[in-house]
Amino acid sequence: MNFGKLKEAVFGKPIASKHAHQERLPKRVALPVFASDALSSTAYATEEIMRTFLHVSPKFMAGGISMSLGYAFLSQTFNIAILICILIVIVSLSYSQTIKAYPGGGGSYTVAKENLGTWPGRLAGASLLIDYILTVAVSVSAGVLALISFNTQLQPYVLHLNCFFILLITIANLRGAKESGALFSIPTYTFVLLFGTLIVYGTFFAAGHPAPPEVALATEELKRVAPNPTELIGWAWILIGFKAFSSGCTALTGIEAISNGTQAFKEPVSRNAAITLWWMAGILSFLFVGGSYLAEKFHIIPMEFGEPGFKTVVAMITQATFPQNTSFGVGYFTAMQFATAGILILAANTAYADFPRLASIIARDNYLPRQLAVVGDRLVYQNGIIILAVTSCLLIVKFGGDTSKLIPLYAIGVFASFTLSQFGMVVHQRKDKKSLATQAVSFFGGTITLIITVVIAVSKWTAGAWVVFIAVPLVLSMMLAIQRHYRYLARELEITPEDKVLPARTVTLLLVPRVHRGILNAISYARALSEDVRALHVTIDPKTVAKVKEDWVKHGQEMPLVILESPYRSLVGPIIDYVEQTLSEDPEVFVTVIVPESVPRRLWHRLLHTNAAIPLKAALGARKRVVITNVRHYLK
Amino acid sequence: MNFGKLKEAVFGKPIASKHAHQERLPKRVALPVFASDALSSTAYATEEIMRTFLHVSPKFMAGGISMSLGYAFLSQTFNIAILICILIVIVSLSYSQTIKAYPGGGGSYTVAKENLGTWPGRLAGASLLIDYILTVAVSVSAGVLALISFNTQLQPYVLHLNCFFILLITIANLRGAKESGALFSIPTYTFVLLFGTLIVYGTFFAAGHPAPPEVALATEELKRVAPNPTELIGWAWILIGFKAFSSGCTALTGIEAISNGTQAFKEPVSRNAAITLWWMAGILSFLFVGGSYLAEKFHIIPMEFGEPGFKTVVAMITQATFPQNTSFGVGYFTAMQFATAGILILAANTAYADFPRLASIIARDNYLPRQLAVVGDRLVYQNGIIILAVTSCLLIVKFGGDTSKLIPLYAIGVFASFTLSQFGMVVHQRKDKKSLATQAVSFFGGTITLIITVVIAVSKWTAGAWVVFIAVPLVLSMMLAIQRHYRYLARELEITPEDKVLPARTVTLLLVPRVHRGILNAISYARALSEDVRALHVTIDPKTVAKVKEDWVKHGQEMPLVILESPYRSLVGPIIDYVEQTLSEDPEVFVTVIVPESVPRRLWHRLLHTNAAIPLKAALGARKRVVITNVRHYLK
Repeated sequence: MNFGKLKEAVFGKPIASKHAHQERLPKRVALPVFASDALSSTAYATEEIMRTFLHVSPKFMAGGISMSLGYAFLSQTFNIAILICILIVIVSLSYSQTIKAYPGGGGSYTVAKENLGTWPGRLAGASLLIDYILTVAVSVSAGVLALISFNTQLQPYVLHLNCFFILLITIANLRGAKESGALFSIPTYTFVLLFGTLIVYGTFFAAGHPAPPEVALATEELKRVAPNPTELIGWAWILIGFKAFSSGCTALTGIEAISNGTQAFKEPVSRNAAITLWWMAGILSFLFVGGSYLAEKFHIIPMEFGEPGFKTVVAMITQATFPQNTSFGVGYFTAMQFATAGILILAANTAYADFPRLASIIARDNYLPRQLAVVGDRLVYQNGIIILAVTSCLLIVKFGGDTSKLIPLYAIGVFASFTLSQFGMVVHQRKDKKSLATQAVSFFGGTITLIITVVIAVSKWTAGAWVVFIAVPLVLSMMLAIQRHYRYLARELEITPEDKVLPARTVTLLLVPRVHRGILNAISYARALSEDVRALHVTIDPKTVAKVKEDWVKHGQEMPLVILESPYRSLVGPIIDYVEQTLSEDPEVFVTVIVPESVPRRLWHRLLHTNAAIPLKAALGARKRVVITNVRHYLK
Repeated sequence: MNFGKLKEAVFGKPIASKHAHQERLPKRVALPVFASDALSSTAYATEEIMRTFLHVSPKFMAGGISMSLGYAFLSQTFNIAILICILIVIVSLSYSQTIKAYPGGGGSYTVAKENLGTWPGRLAGASLLIDYILTVAVSVSAGVLALISFNTQLQPYVLHLNCFFILLITIANLRGAKESGALFSIPTYTFVLLFGTLIVYGTFFAAGHPAPPEVALATEELKRVAPNPTELIGWAWILIGFKAFSSGCTALTGIEAISNGTQAFKEPVSRNAAITLWWMAGILSFLFVGGSYLAEKFHIIPMEFGEPGFKTVVAMITQATFPQNTSFGVGYFTAMQFATAGILILAANTAYADFPRLASIIARDNYLPRQLAVVGDRLVYQNGIIILAVTSCLLIVKFGGDTSKLIPLYAIGVFASFTLSQFGMVVHQRKDKKSLATQAVSFFGGTITLIITVVIAVSKWTAGAWVVFIAVPLVLSMMLAIQRHYRYLARELEITPEDKVLPARTVTLLLVPRVHRGILNAISYARALSEDVRALHVTIDPKTVAKVKEDWVKHGQEMPLVILESPYRSLVGPIIDYVEQTLSEDPEVFVTVIVPESVPRRLWHRLLHTNAAIPLKAALGARKRVVITNVRHYLK
């Protein structure tokens, strides 16, 4: 009872099934819940592009000075952002069709499975499960980076902060979806407002800071020495561009969340979901392109994770826009960092809404343990939530909380499932005899995202993309093994004409180590249970036998007492032999072994007691006609 | 069955109780089994004395050169060893009286408890339990040091080697005492032979190496500047001497083993044990004094653990005696190192023989869990052995395998229990009206060891002796808490005149999630069990109810089917309510809840199954009249 109350206090009261439909969200709440993932990626996507440029190692000689090409390339950040923005529009167009076709929620898994077949479905399922875990890891770790940018003294506590926030979101989600929505609106809207205002002010009113000398020099020299960069490094130009582009594609992660969760919208579901999707795409593009523009305008150079005084690019943009020598500037910076941390940490919530939902769909297809398909007391899928929390936490610890190391693992699965989902939509639209134009949009989206998947896989291979090519097959083979077991189980449990409920008699054996108050209840139970009931005493210590016999006459209710010798001082051995013998004497008999157990109230006291039922079950549990049961006597 | 066979292969066949007396050992086997601890301490005791000297930090100025006093003091090693040798004789004299008085095995615990009372007995018990653990940790870690002295490239694998050897001894001991004796003779006798020959040859035939310059200089300067060292450092002289003496006292550890294990000797027990004790004391003194003499003669300077190319003092003595440029020298060194490692690693066996035996004696006094009092299949106390293995392994890992750090924890408990045991003997002899001379020997021994206990506690306080002053009270309070619980249990389980075996009826409830082959056996059992038997189905998914009802008509044997609604989709909640209601309707009823369970053969498949009995037991287990039982269906 106490545990029940504690559970209620932390996770809220249980919700009855008939209230399920009330858990649907209005658009203004659905936007923060489902869009926080996509929008929050603007906090790191620009930085990822710039970091790719910085990691360009070749140097070029200009006027006798060795110059890093990377600095020169930073001026291409805005152009890359614009390209990615076009991609956002293409993908959104494709997903708005998915929303119409699947108002009940059309995640890539469902779409791929229904239209492309079992194997693409499984592939999409495995990729998505891994991606949701990475969503949590990337978002929370990036959120913590925003916090340590605000106060660089927090840097040694990166992992503590990460684990703390994962715990926080986990509890919030175990409480249920509706409260989450309300909880998540404030930071999302605050972030959009603050970042938007920053972009507008920064673009039109803030003075561009003079470029840091190394950037200015590199850019100018590059222009002078090689007005056409291909002259300098040939085709590498394109490779670097591809790398930067695929890094920036992380801005698209989370864009599919609305189409997965359509069923959480209010009626009319499709219309509301589509409107929310386009709002999201618009805000996302604006923040991403704007942020990238400001980074270039203010000549920001990203810092390396772990460097003393580490700050994110967004933090540096904010400080460049609002000079930190005014209290307004400091206040704005503070608010911006907390809002960024807030939306990022809450972005993990998208995965918390979707992972358990997807896991339960897959579990109902028998690819995952059935425990994941069970709906908990608060209409959420508790087991899935807990798995998500634990695995993402392990990932963050493994990568030391460095977001940049997690992102290459992340984007490839996202784009693979984009691709499967969109090609699935093409097939779906053909079945529904939709116009060729409609089909073309999905086909075009699918082709583009397929190309990008390949580009990411190749360009990010050494940076970690290979991990995905090991993780996905592992998850896939686990899913297949689970399905094989459940199929086998269904066959095995099918009742055939030969299966009959056989008539049976029972023999009850009551273990009596010595006669004390703890077994009186068990005597009473054993007598009520069957006609043929015998008490068993194993003589470990021959000196005590007489006392047991004497006591049994007083309290044994005329039940026969069988004394078993134990030459090897084993308690369990002679009982096993006796049970085997009883079974062999009568093929219709069920043997019930009653093990009286004195259970102390305190947990540590239980370590001082042995329970003979455990070794008996290990030895006899596989016997069809043996049932071993404890009758407990609770101590006061 | 398979587990039983595996167990037999690893641990040997079980031995019947009536063969127990055959497990007694002849002297030539008892010596290696019980003396390996004491003898093996010669492998590190000399080194501990020398290391204490080296750690003397004050420097003295002589002829304008700053000189470490430590090097100068190394020349006192032999004198300290002679003093400790006298102590060995005193303690052996005292223990030979214990052997006569307690032919059934008189460990400090028994002697102190019977003669000095409960509290000294408990104190001796707690100290000894901790000491046996430390014996294993010190011996095994020192044995590994002998191996890494042989091949310094093994240094990075110190902890792996430690864990490996503990595992090895553990398995050997679970196999039983007699085989252990045979197994342990070879390394012990080899060590004694090799070390003894080394001492004789080194003393009389090997040329003394010229002293290393720093030692020679320090010794000479000290003699010249201060022929009487007190002039130089005053009373510190005595303090340093005390420290070195108490470090060297580690040579006595294990000397009590024979008196603890007297009952393992052949008849006449006392005589055989006493003869073995004096043989042991003689060999121990010879090896210890001889080794210390050679260390001084060859001007050995101990190395620090972890230093590259680390070698023990004994290894350095061996190399100094037999020059390593001949194949005989190399061969002798190899044999000596392996024999040293062998006797040290096997020395842990003393603790493996004594810890479980002591734990079972203490457990029978209700100070330790009763599981420790149970004699296993092979006349050894398996639970004690396993606890000893785990805790000593943890200690070694905690201290990184550095023997020197473990020794200060070790010696203090050993001498405390020496003291308690010998004062206990004084009381025992007074009761038996023994001669005053006999009493005086024990009293003198007790006084000396008491003084040494205090000296060790003070001089080694900061080096780790304080840990013992925390560990012993902790173990003591654990022992008291356990005794309190068992006393309470005995009171609680006493049958009073009010306790009656009440008449009872049973209602059997069979959980039916759906009708499949896995529950047919359970139906058959439930019907045989009682007249009033009902099937319960909880409707998690309302769509499946009709199917369950239909199937039940076919296979349910006319048992009534109760359908329970579950508004919160909880399986367990409605069952709990139903059970509570059934109990409240009839005060004499026992409710048996039968949970059919399909058990797959493979362990990982079991993760894919849930067992409703577990949450039901958690919720209802404390109810006096509810019994929850699984009827298992094993899958093929």
